[in-house]
Amino acid sequence: MPKLDLDSIEQTNRTGYPAPYDQEVSGRWYRRLAPAGGLTQFGVSQVTLKPGAWSSQRHWHDEEDEFLVMISGEAVLVEDEGPTVLRAGDCAAFPAGVKDGHHLRNESDSDCVFVVVGSGAGGTGGYSDIDMMWTADDRYVHKDGTPY
Amino acid sequence: MPKLDLDSIEQTNRTGYPAPYDQEVSGRWYRRLAPAGGLTQFGVSQVTLKPGAWSSQRHWHDEEDEFLVMISGEAVLVEDEGPTVLRAGDCAAFPAGVKDGHHLRNESDSDCVFVVVGSGAGGTGGYSDIDMMWTADDRYVHKDGTPY
Repeated sequence: MPKLDLDSIEQTNRTGYPAPYDQEVSGRWYRRLAPAGGLTQFGVSQVTLKPGAWSSQRHWHDEEDEFLVMISGEAVLVEDEGPTVLRAGDCAAFPAGVKDGHHLRNESDSDCVFVVVGSGAGGTGGYSDIDMMWTADDRYVHKDGTPY
Repeated sequence: MPKLDLDSIEQTNRTGYPAPYDQEVSGRWYRRLAPAGGLTQFGVSQVTLKPGAWSSQRHWHDEEDEFLVMISGEAVLVEDEGPTVLRAGDCAAFPAGVKDGHHLRNESDSDCVFVVVGSGAGGTGGYSDIDMMWTADDRYVHKDGTPY
């Protein structure tokens, strides 16, 4: 059945972020839609941000293209040049290798929902505001390479 | 600027479908978002269906995963087992090689909008209801291989 039964797909707020960077994403609840739909060629997640929650620490991907579309509610997209409000239907694209970190913050009083796509290219990435990056084998390390 | 200025991206109802199969998609207006956003690793389009319009002839991809999320309005997803209504936030996944053709029909009185992602794997594909398929070099042919 191509239509996904979203309610039946596990929703989690898991994160691998080391403390204290996990705090801001504790109200980020996501479902991995690609495996649920039998897709293997790219990644797709549905993400709900509770009021106050962030989608991630402000990050970029060195090798992986990323795209998102807002479904409901309102979020603030933050990057180097400042904030931009996103509402239902708004789309944003983050080409691999552009070292301008981005994330979404729910600064409203209601949940917001978006769908985010990643190519699945994997690879490394970095964070704009904190002393952290991730490795090609998905470990979080300081910018000098020492582990958390 | 990661947020896409959708209004500035060309919207077209072009199709390569041979007559008479082009008729049902004449009210399908789409924008290619990936190139506009600098993305090269997968394809993304925003599609508006006018009342009565179809997203495509009912088709499948032999090699390419496809995913869509409804943004606004209402569409009917048609596949072999019948119709399913999709509304804002609903998602559907179409794994490569599943030869159960799908398309969306706008049977409502208002526009509907969805975002569709394809992996970019390309390759061949087929149509469920008509004597047509497409080749790896993107030509439409009869199911016996003769060109239109």
